[in-house]
Amino acid sequence: MAQKPSIPKGTRDFGPIEMARRNYIFDTIRGVFGKYGYSPIETPAMENLSTLLGKYGEEGDKLLFKVLNSGDAFSGISPEMLSNSNSLSLKVCEKGLRYDLTVPFARFVVQHQSEIVFPFKRYQIQPVWRADRPQKGRYREFYQCDVDVVGSNSLINELELVQIVDDVFSKLGIRVQVKINNRKILTGIAEVIGRPEKLIDITVAIDKIDKIGLDAVKDELREKSLTDAEISMIEPVLILSGTTAEKIEKMRELLASSSVGLTGVEEVARLFSLIAGSSPSCEVELDLSLARGLNYYTGAIFEVKALDTQMGSICGGGRYDDLTGIFGLKGVSGVGISFGADRIYDVLSALDKFPETAVNGTKVLFTNLGDSAVNFSLPIVSQLRRAGVSVELYPDETKLKKQFDYADKKGIKWLAIVGDSEVAESKVSLKNLISGEQKLLSANDLVQELVSAL
Amino acid sequence: MAQKPSIPKGTRDFGPIEMARRNYIFDTIRGVFGKYGYSPIETPAMENLSTLLGKYGEEGDKLLFKVLNSGDAFSGISPEMLSNSNSLSLKVCEKGLRYDLTVPFARFVVQHQSEIVFPFKRYQIQPVWRADRPQKGRYREFYQCDVDVVGSNSLINELELVQIVDDVFSKLGIRVQVKINNRKILTGIAEVIGRPEKLIDITVAIDKIDKIGLDAVKDELREKSLTDAEISMIEPVLILSGTTAEKIEKMRELLASSSVGLTGVEEVARLFSLIAGSSPSCEVELDLSLARGLNYYTGAIFEVKALDTQMGSICGGGRYDDLTGIFGLKGVSGVGISFGADRIYDVLSALDKFPETAVNGTKVLFTNLGDSAVNFSLPIVSQLRRAGVSVELYPDETKLKKQFDYADKKGIKWLAIVGDSEVAESKVSLKNLISGEQKLLSANDLVQELVSAL
Repeated sequence: MAQKPSIPKGTRDFGPIEMARRNYIFDTIRGVFGKYGYSPIETPAMENLSTLLGKYGEEGDKLLFKVLNSGDAFSGISPEMLSNSNSLSLKVCEKGLRYDLTVPFARFVVQHQSEIVFPFKRYQIQPVWRADRPQKGRYREFYQCDVDVVGSNSLINELELVQIVDDVFSKLGIRVQVKINNRKILTGIAEVIGRPEKLIDITVAIDKIDKIGLDAVKDELREKSLTDAEISMIEPVLILSGTTAEKIEKMRELLASSSVGLTGVEEVARLFSLIAGSSPSCEVELDLSLARGLNYYTGAIFEVKALDTQMGSICGGGRYDDLTGIFGLKGVSGVGISFGADRIYDVLSALDKFPETAVNGTKVLFTNLGDSAVNFSLPIVSQLRRAGVSVELYPDETKLKKQFDYADKKGIKWLAIVGDSEVAESKVSLKNLISGEQKLLSANDLVQELVSAL
Repeated sequence: MAQKPSIPKGTRDFGPIEMARRNYIFDTIRGVFGKYGYSPIETPAMENLSTLLGKYGEEGDKLLFKVLNSGDAFSGISPEMLSNSNSLSLKVCEKGLRYDLTVPFARFVVQHQSEIVFPFKRYQIQPVWRADRPQKGRYREFYQCDVDVVGSNSLINELELVQIVDDVFSKLGIRVQVKINNRKILTGIAEVIGRPEKLIDITVAIDKIDKIGLDAVKDELREKSLTDAEISMIEPVLILSGTTAEKIEKMRELLASSSVGLTGVEEVARLFSLIAGSSPSCEVELDLSLARGLNYYTGAIFEVKALDTQMGSICGGGRYDDLTGIFGLKGVSGVGISFGADRIYDVLSALDKFPETAVNGTKVLFTNLGDSAVNFSLPIVSQLRRAGVSVELYPDETKLKKQFDYADKKGIKWLAIVGDSEVAESKVSLKNLISGEQKLLSANDLVQELVSAL
């Protein structure tokens, strides 16, 4: 093979530094999830296509990666079948790669319902695959990081998700704003103006207000055949300002004739009261134009934005009342959020917020200047490892310069030089490669020095 | 959908308890790898089929899961092509799922050779997929856990791999025996008897001696057309006993006429001397019948067996001198081992060695007996989480019995009961669900009690 090998487009290798940084993000998130009583699960990369198809819309079906049946996949395929590419691919492929973590989670809950303790609080951090056209920031394999609770209607779950967001981003050092809305309020608006069938059009339009402005939103609503009278009823929602309490009070008036709308307002009021009681360190804002994932969410809708970059949403989610209905288990309500690991990585990079310790590599490199030096060093190396220090002994006897370079390129801070004179004195020369300072130490002093420097 | 959903055969879901146990294994292994200066990498689940094909033999090629090209995979396929299922599948599939971690690692090293600092010490813990017939203990998706160093010929690497094995299984509480051989010794044996072309036949036969005994091995060698004179030259190797030093001395004599054989003996001698110096807590034995992965390894060969079960090998590996040659990068020697996560899981289960803390779940459940109790509890719950305690507040106001059951089923040790009387007194009733003991505590005393009980 003359050509350098490559990987499929839209996929990535992660080397040691990227891995250390990614693990820093995932470990932080996992740590917070655990404090709130969420437990990890994992599902297989391959699901039956029957589990996946029809769950992501027509567009989504096309973006599924299908896995060829093993064995003689094409036996029994007639030439006529070639004319229908779609049905042929289903004939020879019974499995597909996971497209998200939500559908596999719903499948998991239904399949294991008798073993699960409800309310079931789970998180899941695994890759998903989409045959999207690759482009900057969009990959065909990427990790999702979902946390959900199913089997409870309580708004305490929503509160805890906001607290989780607050804790995670505080720990990561990213200032965020959490925007909250409620699908029932959007439904109420459509009801109150007498056009419940226009719910999607209305929310798609008002979702754009930040980008295109009030007048353009009104134009779009007009295009969607809303009358000026109807639009003027929506306008107060669009220009709603003031404190959350003031917004809520105003929405109570505007939605007085819609019982579902009022339920949404009361849910929002209770949630914001709970959140206020928890004194979050991040901004939490009621944003009635937030319409993310509308076809899916039935209650709270969340979106999290990093304040100091233009990265867009780095986390989002909401409540869905019938997640497991698609697999035959009705009436199980859930609420969850998903952390965008790649976006969070980019934000931390852009803000230069990865802690030095995130690249949690080797602390000290012992030189290799021949067998007798190695024999002297090995027990000290073991002693350091037992004391919790990450240590390497350079495996090959080679020029000191090359070993220096190795330490330098790997960002190793300490070099423990052991040559004939050190062996003769039963000591080690410890060099700090950042300050250049060098000391001659006994093995015990060396261990003490390095352990205390951790 | 009336039928309960399922997952493809040979795949598994991992629920919270299995995940906690698996993470305990992986975290232990990762912790040890890190102490030795190994860094994690990850490669994509899908590789180009050209990367995978021909690397695992004909049988392996058949066991690759192929991924259908996205878009119109079957366009341009003529009816005639249907007759050749194999070439058709290659036409419509350009990608396949990772079959092991070794080939992707070789591909990674070649592709990123200019960015990598050699010697390159990496580990990789990711699932692999094989279209094998599923059976007890054999899955179509399973995790591999590989640790390798490439770009160094030093036997210190072999020593450190033995130390890693020793550390990992000591930490896991599994007593193991490490068996070591060297491919060069096996080559030497075939040379010395004048039948170098019979290397594979000889090693396949002597590999079976533990199972079938000396006479049957000799029969098999005879079937493979070895003469009685040749077999009698091999016999001393087969019945070799005594200390490692004695075995090595004997092999020096037997292999005196084979320079490659003698090199193997000297490598083994140096490695065992290094190992003896490191005082491992596990048994390490020279086993000249060990022939694992013969077509692949060129130097040391390792195998690790759990002593207190009949589980077979739980870890193995060796040195390969031309891993990256298949992708055009010659002369890079490597050595590595692979931990069998599923086997280790089964051994820990069989020996009942999973620590209680491996199921690292919620420590305390706060009851939900109404909004005023919840409002009282929430700040205490937050305080506990900040102090590092995993806490849940039962989200729904419901019968105390149901909340008890939840704590019981999830194995939560402490129940913090907050009802009207507790709120009136500004206290919490903390019940130990194992001992049944119950105390009335102030918030601060509660936090102190639970933090010290961690």
